[in-house]
Amino acid sequence: MFQTRLNDVAAEVGAHLDDVLAGYPDQQVIHAMRYAVSGGKRLRAFLVVESAALFGAGGAMNAAAAVEALHAYSLVHDDLPCMDDDDLRRGQPTVHVKWDQATAVLAGDALQTLCFSLLAAPETHADGAVRADLVASMAAASGARGMVYGQALDIAAETAAQPLNLDQIIELQAGKTGALIQWSAEAGARLAGEDIAPLGAYAKALGLAFQIADDILDVEGDAAKAGKRLQKDAEAGKATFVSLLGLDGAKARAAELVEQAEAALDIYGSQAQTLRDAARFVITRDM
Amino acid sequence: MFQTRLNDVAAEVGAHLDDVLAGYPDQQVIHAMRYAVSGGKRLRAFLVVESAALFGAGGAMNAAAAVEALHAYSLVHDDLPCMDDDDLRRGQPTVHVKWDQATAVLAGDALQTLCFSLLAAPETHADGAVRADLVASMAAASGARGMVYGQALDIAAETAAQPLNLDQIIELQAGKTGALIQWSAEAGARLAGEDIAPLGAYAKALGLAFQIADDILDVEGDAAKAGKRLQKDAEAGKATFVSLLGLDGAKARAAELVEQAEAALDIYGSQAQTLRDAARFVITRDM
Repeated sequence: MFQTRLNDVAAEVGAHLDDVLAGYPDQQVIHAMRYAVSGGKRLRAFLVVESAALFGAGGAMNAAAAVEALHAYSLVHDDLPCMDDDDLRRGQPTVHVKWDQATAVLAGDALQTLCFSLLAAPETHADGAVRADLVASMAAASGARGMVYGQALDIAAETAAQPLNLDQIIELQAGKTGALIQWSAEAGARLAGEDIAPLGAYAKALGLAFQIADDILDVEGDAAKAGKRLQKDAEAGKATFVSLLGLDGAKARAAELVEQAEAALDIYGSQAQTLRDAARFVITRDM
Repeated sequence: MFQTRLNDVAAEVGAHLDDVLAGYPDQQVIHAMRYAVSGGKRLRAFLVVESAALFGAGGAMNAAAAVEALHAYSLVHDDLPCMDDDDLRRGQPTVHVKWDQATAVLAGDALQTLCFSLLAAPETHADGAVRADLVASMAAASGARGMVYGQALDIAAETAAQPLNLDQIIELQAGKTGALIQWSAEAGARLAGEDIAPLGAYAKALGLAFQIADDILDVEGDAAKAGKRLQKDAEAGKATFVSLLGLDGAKARAAELVEQAEAALDIYGSQAQTLRDAARFVITRDM
């Protein structure tokens, strides 16, 4: 069953991150790092593990932990008062609420470093060129032309004279969440030395569907299940896929994208069924 | 002349960073990144370039730009109100003063990413294993067991019941500034596939001398030349090498460390003269 498999991978990656951090000094920043990487759906890690399984590639656990560390860093910094100012994440106080802002800045910084440390570690792959490629592609996905670019567009939009249009929202989301999801799905092909293009096409559609589903959940979801404050965007008058396409339009678009994502995996046949299930999961999840 | 050579490398690395960032989107975060990496002595870049020159190794410019990007990220985040709360850096308003805190958080984040991007880039070295090693060693030097560890100790010390003792200050500084200086000096040996031990011994002594000199400058220096607020540590009642060793004791210790640093380079003979000059420079500089 898909959900069981997702949970198993989440548990395995969580345990691996705990193992890695157990080797770090017993210090408040490390406690905050461990706290920040705990919980969550671990969809990105799952995409790494399943795309690697598609090719029988090793090294997936370090790469999966790396993308979760990167994702956690982005959440910790994004939740800061000067950014999105969120008090609740995964049903728990955010890092700067539980500790303080300095700890949140440092823990986020060190989680980003941890990501690259894991990708470059000799255990991740025998071939150094593959490890360097994982680092370079992760840097491209997460830096000022990827995730940070999307976050900067998001913050600029808050003070812009008018709400973003559909193309601008798509560009923003491609950076803010899409790039990292795409990296995750392509990681298996990188580890195996295979063509990343089919997984890239799959992930582009999946990433956009994921974000549309997030906007739908923000309107229809249950804050207790989501573990974070909802309807923030509507309150702030921010453009979302729902505000631009309507609720039904957004659902139709997301379903269409999931079909596109599934179709991109045709060349892998039934081997790719779990990745197809993952695409369907992103629009049916309730958290 | 040493100062000319230092200035030349600084200019070359600055131009390289400008070139790299010219390929990024025309966005506020990028402007802040460019601003944050401009100026400074570029001692770390110089150590990369000169240690590479010692072995005739290529790829030094990317590695030098990488360490300056990493250093700049640490300064931008360190200057934040929730951290050291500094308004002035290199004689200019700090990033969060010139723009805002969100831009400072994001620009710092993206500068860290840029560092790893440069180290992993194929142009840096033909051998992927060398690039992965540069990434892994940089992550070790800058993460929660290196620079961030030192920063966390520094912040913890601010609210500690009593000032740090000499061993604790040495441990703090080994992380906060020493690890990155050591990485810089070892980088040339990594690029060349040579033993990093002699440069590591050189850099350990040099890094400690650098920090003692910083504490001396904080007491004796000219704020206009330093381009930042001085005597903060004394005002805050923080332990420094000067408060623990006295001014004369600190100067004697720094001079002793410079001799140690020079001696560590004996096996390279006159080839290493510029690196010896760099060691002497760190205790004679006035900024």
